[in-house]
Amino acid sequence: MRLSVEEAERLADELWYRNVEKTVIAVAQDYETKEVLMVAYMNREAFIRTLSTGLMHYWSLSRRRIWMKGETSGNIQEVVDAYIDCDGDAVLFLVKQRGNACHKGFRSCFHNRIKAGEEGQ
Amino acid sequence: MRLSVEEAERLADELWYRNVEKTVIAVAQDYETKEVLMVAYMNREAFIRTLSTGLMHYWSLSRRRIWMKGETSGNIQEVVDAYIDCDGDAVLFLVKQRGNACHKGFRSCFHNRIKAGEEGQ
Repeated sequence: MRLSVEEAERLADELWYRNVEKTVIAVAQDYETKEVLMVAYMNREAFIRTLSTGLMHYWSLSRRRIWMKGETSGNIQEVVDAYIDCDGDAVLFLVKQRGNACHKGFRSCFHNRIKAGEEGQ
Repeated sequence: MRLSVEEAERLADELWYRNVEKTVIAVAQDYETKEVLMVAYMNREAFIRTLSTGLMHYWSLSRRRIWMKGETSGNIQEVVDAYIDCDGDAVLFLVKQRGNACHKGFRSCFHNRIKAGEEGQ
């Protein structure tokens, strides 16, 4: 999915950048398996670049710059579909993931499963 | 899924509360359909209550207090499974959703689909 820069800018104006460093939360979900792959941040510019190129761009809190997912690893995420949540501070992207989403070599960043021990149920 | 308070506290110590108001991002996903229902925030206490009761609790940025999802609407979320992401600042919960997740009457908060107009592709 790709929008014109003007369309992307109009949508960007409707978001609520209330997160750290003026960002919204971006959730990337595999468009086929529905697996949640990763959660990260987008500032206004990253959101516009994502929609106008069709490739996921995030704001890196640690590096303090926009990065295109896969720019070094090649594990890009193509946008298939996108949904803004009811208060505009989070966006869900259905993506076609090339390779793995997690830099640790896992398909998804959410690979640490919480297990209930003997004390739990 | 329910853990003892001690188990929940041990896990809570491993999270990275780097978000607004010392929170982690919590993603609630329907355990059956895999639909992403909502994204919100948990501070340490909300995370512990969630795992020790088996019911989703969040930190409300607007009300500045912990709330149990469904405490007024009845639309509770039972925790079925949970995964911590690779850097510990986000947690994915697979939940059994009673009623709708969105206070606007939609199943999911992500109901505003972005459509590419004539200018886009």
